[in-house]
Amino acid sequence: MNKKKKIIIIGGGFAGVFSAKHIAKQFRNKDVDIELISYYNYFIFQPLLPEVSSGIINPNDVVTPLRMLIPNIKHRMAAVHKIDQKNKQIELSQGECEEFIKLDYDELVIACGKKSSLNLPGFASHTFVMKDLGDAFRLKNHIISCLELADATLNQKLKKEILTFVVVGAGFSGVETIGELQDTVKRALKHYPNIEMSEIKFLLLQRNVRILLQLSEKLATYAHKKLEKRGVDIRVKTNVVRATKEHIELNTGEIIHTQTVITTIGSGTRDFIKKSFNLEKGSIPVNKYMQSTEYKNIWALGDVALIPLDKEKSGEDFAPPTAQFAVREGKILSKNLYAEMFGGKKQAFNYKPLGLMASIGSYQGVAEIRGVIISGFIAWAMWRSVYLIKLPGFVTKFRVFMNWATDYFFPRALVQVSPVVQKSINYEHYAKGDIIRNKGDLITHFSLIIQGSVQRWDDEHSEVLKEQDNLCIKTEFEIYKRTFTALEDSIIMTIPKKDFAFLKNSFSEFKHIFDNRENR
Amino acid sequence: MNKKKKIIIIGGGFAGVFSAKHIAKQFRNKDVDIELISYYNYFIFQPLLPEVSSGIINPNDVVTPLRMLIPNIKHRMAAVHKIDQKNKQIELSQGECEEFIKLDYDELVIACGKKSSLNLPGFASHTFVMKDLGDAFRLKNHIISCLELADATLNQKLKKEILTFVVVGAGFSGVETIGELQDTVKRALKHYPNIEMSEIKFLLLQRNVRILLQLSEKLATYAHKKLEKRGVDIRVKTNVVRATKEHIELNTGEIIHTQTVITTIGSGTRDFIKKSFNLEKGSIPVNKYMQSTEYKNIWALGDVALIPLDKEKSGEDFAPPTAQFAVREGKILSKNLYAEMFGGKKQAFNYKPLGLMASIGSYQGVAEIRGVIISGFIAWAMWRSVYLIKLPGFVTKFRVFMNWATDYFFPRALVQVSPVVQKSINYEHYAKGDIIRNKGDLITHFSLIIQGSVQRWDDEHSEVLKEQDNLCIKTEFEIYKRTFTALEDSIIMTIPKKDFAFLKNSFSEFKHIFDNRENR
Repeated sequence: MNKKKKIIIIGGGFAGVFSAKHIAKQFRNKDVDIELISYYNYFIFQPLLPEVSSGIINPNDVVTPLRMLIPNIKHRMAAVHKIDQKNKQIELSQGECEEFIKLDYDELVIACGKKSSLNLPGFASHTFVMKDLGDAFRLKNHIISCLELADATLNQKLKKEILTFVVVGAGFSGVETIGELQDTVKRALKHYPNIEMSEIKFLLLQRNVRILLQLSEKLATYAHKKLEKRGVDIRVKTNVVRATKEHIELNTGEIIHTQTVITTIGSGTRDFIKKSFNLEKGSIPVNKYMQSTEYKNIWALGDVALIPLDKEKSGEDFAPPTAQFAVREGKILSKNLYAEMFGGKKQAFNYKPLGLMASIGSYQGVAEIRGVIISGFIAWAMWRSVYLIKLPGFVTKFRVFMNWATDYFFPRALVQVSPVVQKSINYEHYAKGDIIRNKGDLITHFSLIIQGSVQRWDDEHSEVLKEQDNLCIKTEFEIYKRTFTALEDSIIMTIPKKDFAFLKNSFSEFKHIFDNRENR
Repeated sequence: MNKKKKIIIIGGGFAGVFSAKHIAKQFRNKDVDIELISYYNYFIFQPLLPEVSSGIINPNDVVTPLRMLIPNIKHRMAAVHKIDQKNKQIELSQGECEEFIKLDYDELVIACGKKSSLNLPGFASHTFVMKDLGDAFRLKNHIISCLELADATLNQKLKKEILTFVVVGAGFSGVETIGELQDTVKRALKHYPNIEMSEIKFLLLQRNVRILLQLSEKLATYAHKKLEKRGVDIRVKTNVVRATKEHIELNTGEIIHTQTVITTIGSGTRDFIKKSFNLEKGSIPVNKYMQSTEYKNIWALGDVALIPLDKEKSGEDFAPPTAQFAVREGKILSKNLYAEMFGGKKQAFNYKPLGLMASIGSYQGVAEIRGVIISGFIAWAMWRSVYLIKLPGFVTKFRVFMNWATDYFFPRALVQVSPVVQKSINYEHYAKGDIIRNKGDLITHFSLIIQGSVQRWDDEHSEVLKEQDNLCIKTEFEIYKRTFTALEDSIIMTIPKKDFAFLKNSFSEFKHIFDNRENR
């Protein structure tokens, strides 16, 4: 008997969800296993993130649980660590306890997108990004903090710093972000009696000669003027050189004091993709059918793939990393995957978008549809309507619509849900006989025995670890080679691997502690 | 000219908000400064927290920004560290940068409530509490994690563990929490094809002989039976002895394997209260006018105060720590404060509640009003109506109502907003000449120079710190005694004080590093 064929899709964004949807449809009469693996359990409509960070839409309402969106395929919420092309396996960890497992695949569809990455000094430590829901959520909390402190402090230098908001990159996301941010802050001010609008600065920095490069010059100029009129200071031909805790430095040498820098540009390849493919321009090279040029049974689409286009038909060499393209790619990919597995003709991917539109906040938008240019409130209303139509799932549509309606009629509720950063160093309690780590578990933390004693063992070997002994000190991706069992009631201190690596790399005396310690 | 009198209210819960509201009203014709200090910038309607954690209500919608709720008084979002009764000052820190300031007061109203604290082994590390919005939010995310992992894992032991949900304490909060949790999980199951309802365990543990001690026995029995019928395993006369990472141990010796323990009992006094008063039963002793027995110009109400009642009128020795009482206390306190400052007769606080009600989830409730007993759907509908009436602010009422309506008609969207724990160890970048810490700043982090050099200086003294030098190693509440300036472009590694203390207390070799280091 033949084993059922297994198709695994990695990624829950536009590319992942729409390819999964079409694959499920395409293969509905075939006996194959289809599984979608995603780091989050929801699909987020990314173009609305600026509205989440500015408090118009509730974080919960702009997302659709994947299980409800594509109910007819299997889901797994997990982080992928490795693709093993030789054994046709992927390695991943799932759940808060990071259970480590391997999954077999016959066909693999990679749609995991890219991660934010702007490799400038200080940027990793001192800037906000707008990539996923958590980012928007954290930015919102931070902006509220700034307003609260600015209203309370008597330190004028500090006040100026926290009332300066900078957005780096003036594409759709950057323009929407600064537009909504300005609108939100303006609307909030009546509740902050010690802040004047004139004390607040909004800066939009663009490396290129103009904003909104994706749109025509005429339309971009309109948006530029509108934003400037509303008080946004737009700097074109301006690079950021670095960020510190209290300022950014521009290529002109100018220093801008701020504690809020939001970058909407720069993307990097995820580590497990880097390790697994010979990349081109940082992406997985595929043929016009979206099939990997290295592995016949691996497919890629969306931002992570370099998909060649027919330049005559589409005007571009490669598919741009936009949602509009990802959605179409998913459909064609599902057909080609079917053709590959069950025979048939594959279809080359090609697409030319019908139009483009953008919101600039405060009920203003710009749009260009089949060459026709529209701006102002009508463009904004169109923009919202199209988004509502495109939002997947009726419930999500309804929720977002209700958010918009509430926001129109009522003041924006600027509340911080959780300003507290969780402790990263924790204690784990175990009773005598409890298994602390299983052989084969993923090493996710540095673990140190604080109290009690622990047996480290397998079939051939056994040793007793005492207080102040560590379980492991490796910081790479690795699994435990033996099992650890509590010999008495014990307490283990844990530090997340990332933090532990930070400490070891930065603090030389801390590193020395481990020079002669054994990794277990 | 006399300086304006200043009234400071500490706390943004029921006690703080309602006393502030009444004080603002009472003193509307007097030229006094009134300021409310709160750790959050919103008022949370705590009785609805179980509905937030079970996904019925959006976290954002159940709270009202304090600035909108009491617009006519000053607000400050800050953490109080110390009360200096001699100088009539409070010391606090505000903003993400924890700016340290002192405020003068003439009259101080303390309404900061208590913190969760159940002093059993392992509880601090391995249980959830239900005290503020962040708690409900984290619990919700955790429950979704459990369902996602249970659907995906093949490890049967792990599956059983993560599908066992335990609530400790069967008061209003405990009963509502288990009721809503059971309802949520049940409704969610159709999206998790690999989980059967029979695989899930719900446990409610109560130390006393019955649940809902606040209600009559008849009503509590009704609720008990209803919950049991729905599959909740209720254990009365049952104590928890300790919690480990994977189980809890009961006083009977029984071990229950679980990764979700929610404690709704146990409260402790905040540190700055402990340091500042001679407490009685862990609370601030006050007279029947809610005036501190130690300091005439300090007042206390709500959970943090021990308010004597007239037993004949109210049936109790002291005011119980409930919202119903706090709201009434606020009103009387405002009158007494006015009488104290401007003359008049003070009024002793006394109150006897009219009725009590509770939801047990799944559209079922129990209520007892002026001795009349009501149960089932009608009690539940009453419960919701009363809450809606009591919710402060029209916008919040509207939002919560819309959440209820949406929840009734649509599936609950079980999405995890941000499962990622923020790094607690960070790098701060500084440019040459930047001030890294000011003299007088609060020490909030352990800081180590990773790159560059730093001048530590004041009018009399100056020294140069190099790479691997630390700025401070103290973990108590303290401020910097000198200013630190970057002599060149520098990077500082920071660890939050709490994490640093954890490390030092637990890891002896780490502690040794600091044995000969100087605190700066």
